[in-house]
Amino acid sequence: MAYRETEKMRQRKALAREKIINCTYECVAEGGFRSARITRIAGLAEVATGTIYRHFESREDLFAEVFQLATQKEVDKVAEALNTSGDAAARLEAALRQFAGRALRGPVMAWSLLAEPVDPKVEEERLAYRKAYASLFEKTIREGITEGCFPDQNAQQSSTCLVGAIAESLVGPLSLTQPNRENEDNDPLVDAIIRFCMQGLTGTRR
Amino acid sequence: MAYRETEKMRQRKALAREKIINCTYECVAEGGFRSARITRIAGLAEVATGTIYRHFESREDLFAEVFQLATQKEVDKVAEALNTSGDAAARLEAALRQFAGRALRGPVMAWSLLAEPVDPKVEEERLAYRKAYASLFEKTIREGITEGCFPDQNAQQSSTCLVGAIAESLVGPLSLTQPNRENEDNDPLVDAIIRFCMQGLTGTRR
Repeated sequence: MAYRETEKMRQRKALAREKIINCTYECVAEGGFRSARITRIAGLAEVATGTIYRHFESREDLFAEVFQLATQKEVDKVAEALNTSGDAAARLEAALRQFAGRALRGPVMAWSLLAEPVDPKVEEERLAYRKAYASLFEKTIREGITEGCFPDQNAQQSSTCLVGAIAESLVGPLSLTQPNRENEDNDPLVDAIIRFCMQGLTGTRR
Repeated sequence: MAYRETEKMRQRKALAREKIINCTYECVAEGGFRSARITRIAGLAEVATGTIYRHFESREDLFAEVFQLATQKEVDKVAEALNTSGDAAARLEAALRQFAGRALRGPVMAWSLLAEPVDPKVEEERLAYRKAYASLFEKTIREGITEGCFPDQNAQQSSTCLVGAIAESLVGPLSLTQPNRENEDNDPLVDAIIRFCMQGLTGTRR
């Protein structure tokens, strides 16, 4: 009789996998991908380092999966903010404000997701997720053009400008080298970013 | 008597080093960092692969140096465009237009410099160079505020928005997966990017 995984074994494996992911997530939120060493993750998850490699082909694969999970959460939040009531301009502004606010409240994780130099696998994911954000913005810009709150424009191009402007302008403030980020009053920063973005879209002085 | 390098040996070493860099540059311009394999570079430079590692500690170090050289050239071009005559808005627009135009005319190299997933060393350089671009733009925005062609704003913040907007909106069009990039008429694309950026800065519809 061939070896068969019992239901109980499958469950135990799934739980161990989840624990490894959660512990990696925790490490990244605390000190970026750089601090998420396999020995440290193994220690937190209370497994041998070899066990990690039974669940993930490589450190890069584990990181890519944690990156996906964490970024998808942010993408979902943006989608949610874009789907509330109000005109397209108001929804877009709310989404940008929320994205920036969340990033500045969890600066280490946000820096890791937006800019931390990691490895090519994570960089590939980063490019893919930037497209996901851009698609969400593009849809709302198109709605805004139809509604009349945005002038006619290349919505796809404007959406990538938005993604770039907000991500790049957060990279500096989020960078690990800046002390006391969490206690700073970030509103003027967020206001400046939003102002540039909304002016870029509308061509109207704010 | 201790071994001493003769002047001739030093020159030969410097020439070999330069040749390795030039051949790497050529590979990157043709197919990105991904295609710049050490064996290929060694073949082009007509040296043994071991020789490359006598000049550079690692592939990452060689790539970082090539990245620096290529990016510094672009930074210098932007600085040059910003230092011509005209008001700050005109100079800034000319610099952005030139940056985008150069990128679209050399799309493989531009993609490699702006977005290709490489390794953490190149990513560190990328972050540093983005700051270099932002500093140049910031200076011009400040001049524009003084001249009265830009409304008062946080020049530092606006400069990072500019860098992000232009880089991100070029990433898609430059991506290696897009066919026939070089033959496309890119003016509408560049116009859309410039419009967003200038509206973002001025709050005036274009």
